[in-house]
Amino acid sequence: MAETDIYARQTFGQKLGLGRSPALLVVDFVNGFNDPEILGGGNIGAAIEATVPLLSFFRAKRLPVIFTRIVYAEDGSDTGLWCEKVPRLRDLTEHARASQVVEALSPQRGELIVRKTQASAFFGTTLASLLAFRGTDTLVVTGCTTSGCVRASVIDAMSNNIRTVVASDCVGDRAIEPHRANLFDIGQKYADLLEAREIMKAIEA
Amino acid sequence: MAETDIYARQTFGQKLGLGRSPALLVVDFVNGFNDPEILGGGNIGAAIEATVPLLSFFRAKRLPVIFTRIVYAEDGSDTGLWCEKVPRLRDLTEHARASQVVEALSPQRGELIVRKTQASAFFGTTLASLLAFRGTDTLVVTGCTTSGCVRASVIDAMSNNIRTVVASDCVGDRAIEPHRANLFDIGQKYADLLEAREIMKAIEA
Amino acid sequence: MAETDIYARQTFGQKLGLGRSPALLVVDFVNGFNDPEILGGGNIGAAIEATVPLLSFFRAKRLPVIFTRIVYAEDGSDTGLWCEKVPRLRDLTEHARASQVVEALSPQRGELIVRKTQASAFFGTTLASLLAFRGTDTLVVTGCTTSGCVRASVIDAMSNNIRTVVASDCVGDRAIEPHRANLFDIGQKYADLLEAREIMKAIEA
Amino acid sequence: MAETDIYARQTFGQKLGLGRSPALLVVDFVNGFNDPEILGGGNIGAAIEATVPLLSFFRAKRLPVIFTRIVYAEDGSDTGLWCEKVPRLRDLTEHARASQVVEALSPQRGELIVRKTQASAFFGTTLASLLAFRGTDTLVVTGCTTSGCVRASVIDAMSNNIRTVVASDCVGDRAIEPHRANLFDIGQKYADLLEAREIMKAIEA
Repeated sequence: MAETDIYARQTFGQKLGLGRSPALLVVDFVNGFNDPEILGGGNIGAAIEATVPLLSFFRAKRLPVIFTRIVYAEDGSDTGLWCEKVPRLRDLTEHARASQVVEALSPQRGELIVRKTQASAFFGTTLASLLAFRGTDTLVVTGCTTSGCVRASVIDAMSNNIRTVVASDCVGDRAIEPHRANLFDIGQKYADLLEAREIMKAIEA
Repeated sequence: MAETDIYARQTFGQKLGLGRSPALLVVDFVNGFNDPEILGGGNIGAAIEATVPLLSFFRAKRLPVIFTRIVYAEDGSDTGLWCEKVPRLRDLTEHARASQVVEALSPQRGELIVRKTQASAFFGTTLASLLAFRGTDTLVVTGCTTSGCVRASVIDAMSNNIRTVVASDCVGDRAIEPHRANLFDIGQKYADLLEAREIMKAIEA
Repeated sequence: MAETDIYARQTFGQKLGLGRSPALLVVDFVNGFNDPEILGGGNIGAAIEATVPLLSFFRAKRLPVIFTRIVYAEDGSDTGLWCEKVPRLRDLTEHARASQVVEALSPQRGELIVRKTQASAFFGTTLASLLAFRGTDTLVVTGCTTSGCVRASVIDAMSNNIRTVVASDCVGDRAIEPHRANLFDIGQKYADLLEAREIMKAIEA
Repeated sequence: MAETDIYARQTFGQKLGLGRSPALLVVDFVNGFNDPEILGGGNIGAAIEATVPLLSFFRAKRLPVIFTRIVYAEDGSDTGLWCEKVPRLRDLTEHARASQVVEALSPQRGELIVRKTQASAFFGTTLASLLAFRGTDTLVVTGCTTSGCVRASVIDAMSNNIRTVVASDCVGDRAIEPHRANLFDIGQKYADLLEAREIMKAIEA
């Protein structure tokens, strides 16, 4: 494929590998992004299922697990342009069912939950600072959507010099073409792409 | 198309319109991204040509014009993971020919030039702060690549609550599929898409 | 005084004046910083009292009001070095009495409440972005402590190019010397200093 | 002294200690801040002298050394409010003599030089990201002024969860009272204070 050719010729897509201290980042796997009637659909359900054993693995290894949720104030005081572009986002408030992490992946006490109002897990949050505090140099990323909050978070992880591996079977999107196109971009420019089982094998090693 | 359907049903893709005070952002239209032997190719040359009248329009209207360039220190002291993922990036140094804005769009004295080391024009720069200083509430975005620095800058513009219009004929990429896929994502989630002539008409109005 | 002399000779301390669109920022006026047995003391109580009419003025003029609170997760998952330097900070959790805004200044529905874990109201928050969204170009700052969260927020307001006026009688500290020394620094380098009544007069004009 | 008493009673001023991977940060020791006729004076010259052996020590140990400089564009395109508050700052341009690091501390090839336009070494720069890339968890801070760029950088280092030690004899200010007052604040809230010789001893250990 010509496109892959030009990327390779221009040195894109080098493998970064894992660092010494990985954490699992679970992006926006909340009820509202699992439900096709709200903001979900496509292969998101399958990605949630594939994340279950990966989450168990990180917990068993006592490696840090981090969740993100989009949370706006109930009185609308912290909404902005993004809620004009995608109005349904403003329903994601602290106690709304739509903004709770799906039951299959429920956060445990002590696991960091990053509340955010923008696509990236890093924007307007202390995530980068907390990774520095813990010495985390690598994020294994799962979540949704591939073309939305995953992509945005992965770009910022790169900008913050955090080594990133996207678990390709553990990210999902409401539509398959954007999912595929964004995995291509991410793999060429910002992160490694591995399946969950490959990631677990690499961490074991 | 099913994909567009689900986006519309979930309220994506609302039009944001122009604000009161627009500026033109010209992302990474430098020699190295125009040259297919370095980091360019595809429709980038055509996007540069289409930007020429838009740039003239902004200058004639005395509206602000902002350029970005990727610039790394010659001794490599400020490179990071991104230069491991795409090693050729590290050739973009202050005085390298590859990192100079293309001649057809040369910056004029007084036009802001944002030096950056990451994909987004906002990361590790004072761009957001300078937009606040000038009261700029809208960015008209041209540049390359659509799937790289344009996409990353547009996400951050949204996160910074800067109304953004991507000039769809003035952005380009080294390969057409990523170009198209990223325009789709951008239009659904982060910015309006208009051709240069539509933008000029809207600003005149 | 020689110190003021050298500052003036070196051009420090120019007046910035008010912009077109001011908001009131009430920094950390919570129970825990009002109580000398927790993190308060000094002239903080007096500063809270002096803020009451200023807050009423902003509300009567329908100008935006923004509050900040330090809020850590109850399970300690988002604490960092600052809680090692000042361990008592970690008691400031969402529902703790110590972290509620003092009754005399209770936020009203629709007034933005910025939750933060660091000294500055801008760090790890979307404050700068929300100021851009609203077109706010000026912050009138009250709160505590002058040498802590007020000082840090004012530096960041300047860095974000937000014109800042510190209401000198509406900021307080647990000890008077740091209060005075920080007002001096702030006035020379980052913000104008005016009393509440002068600020109200200036906004009326 | 009552002030110290209340700070101690409220748990301020705990010692943080050194982390595993320290770097030296030399803040704004440039000609213009050494010259009392420009932006310098006070004990800044003495602080520069005291930094000479500390810099040699870091180089001998092959520990990273980072410099900051304030640098504005020659055409004024990136100045903002800070240059209205302190107009003389805008003379600090890339090639101006005033903005060059003092000869006694000249940067060596490969040592990171952070250009900034605001007080903090972190604002609008990639410093935090580059510390993450290198695994640096501790900054030893020297430079000037104590009440300006040192204080601002130290607050942001804390916010970014970088353990910080201010070399108390290697920071200086144009006037002694602000110098002393800011060292007090820094020691209580954001960083450890040690003399250069104590720092070298601690790193040796």
